[in-house]
Amino acid sequence: MSSEKRSGEFEVIAHFFAPLAKHPGALGLKDDVALLRPKPGYELVLKTDGLVEGVHFRKEDPAHTIARKALRVNLSDLAAKGAQPVGYLLTLALPEWVTDDWLAVFARGLADDQGIFDIALLGGDTDRTPGPLTISITAIGEIAEGKIIRRTGARAGDLVFVSGTIGDGGAGLAVLKGEGANLSAPLRDALIARYQIPEPRLKLGQALVGVASAALDVSDGVIADFGHIAETSNVHITIDAMRVPLSDACRALWGTSNEAVARAATSGDDYEIAFTAPPAKRDAVMAAAQRAGTPVTEIGRVEEGEGVILIDAARMEIPIKRAGFTHF
Amino acid sequence: MSSEKRSGEFEVIAHFFAPLAKHPGALGLKDDVALLRPKPGYELVLKTDGLVEGVHFRKEDPAHTIARKALRVNLSDLAAKGAQPVGYLLTLALPEWVTDDWLAVFARGLADDQGIFDIALLGGDTDRTPGPLTISITAIGEIAEGKIIRRTGARAGDLVFVSGTIGDGGAGLAVLKGEGANLSAPLRDALIARYQIPEPRLKLGQALVGVASAALDVSDGVIADFGHIAETSNVHITIDAMRVPLSDACRALWGTSNEAVARAATSGDDYEIAFTAPPAKRDAVMAAAQRAGTPVTEIGRVEEGEGVILIDAARMEIPIKRAGFTHF
Repeated sequence: MSSEKRSGEFEVIAHFFAPLAKHPGALGLKDDVALLRPKPGYELVLKTDGLVEGVHFRKEDPAHTIARKALRVNLSDLAAKGAQPVGYLLTLALPEWVTDDWLAVFARGLADDQGIFDIALLGGDTDRTPGPLTISITAIGEIAEGKIIRRTGARAGDLVFVSGTIGDGGAGLAVLKGEGANLSAPLRDALIARYQIPEPRLKLGQALVGVASAALDVSDGVIADFGHIAETSNVHITIDAMRVPLSDACRALWGTSNEAVARAATSGDDYEIAFTAPPAKRDAVMAAAQRAGTPVTEIGRVEEGEGVILIDAARMEIPIKRAGFTHF
Repeated sequence: MSSEKRSGEFEVIAHFFAPLAKHPGALGLKDDVALLRPKPGYELVLKTDGLVEGVHFRKEDPAHTIARKALRVNLSDLAAKGAQPVGYLLTLALPEWVTDDWLAVFARGLADDQGIFDIALLGGDTDRTPGPLTISITAIGEIAEGKIIRRTGARAGDLVFVSGTIGDGGAGLAVLKGEGANLSAPLRDALIARYQIPEPRLKLGQALVGVASAALDVSDGVIADFGHIAETSNVHITIDAMRVPLSDACRALWGTSNEAVARAATSGDDYEIAFTAPPAKRDAVMAAAQRAGTPVTEIGRVEEGEGVILIDAARMEIPIKRAGFTHF
């Protein structure tokens, strides 16, 4: 393999990607297709997501990080549905500047996350492009039949929860763009890491099966994503700004004002699980959180009606300029 | 919807793509994931392929045609493995120039082929890109457990077959690039249609289950693709140039010389099925072809050794400059 150039398609596949295809269904990447069936009593959950250089990541981001983010944003969707990941298909459109050296680091990022999440590459396709690096991943998971946590199940009276802390992904991007020069290096690094390497909440999602009434992963921003639940469940959701969990690093960057919370709740890239559950399941939610080792915070209430609002301590609505972040 | 601009992501999905998601597993495109399991005794076959504007299609190609080609090149892979298609996931990276009008025609192309092949959109993702239009499709099919036709099964003594005619896709591209100005319009149109709208040989592939020893679809060119079978099966394949089936239109464009056959056998984009079968199965191959309504031609022989050669009437090797076409 050459380091500063790129080898041919078949060499690239054989050298960098075949070693990642440690699943019998990948057929050693020798057949252009993957073969898969769920274990008895289970069904497959499939999620596809594209990442474009200059839109979802920056060319100067480490290849290792780009690989892991591409994988994790898809695993995050499986997590929110309660599924256990099995593997993924990878389509790459590679510009001129992608060298064998870059691909080696990219493949190492995939390999590292394959180890962490116990998944394998199942198949893929590589092409050249005159444009930006474009990565498309189809992640595949398993879930017991009929157990998927949908977006459509929120009912008036349900409680509203979110995992982890909100706003760190957006704050990390803000730091990369030059905000927070006064923050300590560890705080800055913590935020950047949250932006670059999201943590799919797989254990929590699986623990919420049979507990949550509706769930999705927070990619567009908490307000926008609860908006998707409100819309598909035909309900209204009220979120208490005071209860939205912010990390110390995010507070250090943006403060704790209503405006700061509104910004955190609309900045996206959190990859936490936003979900609802009936009040009778509150203890079950907290038990699931404990079992998964992931903090969960109750932040609001489902009511009759439509849309999502963020309210302050006096229960006044905090104005939101733009509900969420979109890559469209 | 606006005609000369593009609507937002959610409007685009609701207006153009949700109507295509006529499969219970698509969850109405409301959950960001698809849910799927094979029917009892079957397993799923998954294939992913990317198409890039300026590499795999031209911006000026009709949106209807681009959609169908993107779908069909993936269905062609399922066909060659003997699988029956079920549905597909679609990832789009859309440049500025893609308007609602363009998307409407693109979606109509998908809808038309969904009807022809009895498949449905199962899920997807749309993003913007500063670069070329990039389409990534993951096609999903079903096949009885253990019945997939792999590339690895060719054995010395097997016969070598190909469906349909070879070279038309490449000839169609040549016509689009200015060759064949002397050809009649119907011949030119026939070749261009073969390039723009390939015909996945689904019935033939399914009929070859239990008959063919190895198979794949011809995308890189007959020589290169039999090269993949030779490599993964550890055999040598000899192809008789005289027996390679050329269409009347392709003969009119390139003639019937050894060089013409070599060009047809290396030009790619055929999307025919290249396969091998033991001599005892010759009648079964011909019966499968008849059942599928797809012509099949015996064009060579599998032997001990490695690599692929094309030989002339005197059994002399015809020199090949480049085995196949690559989009890498």
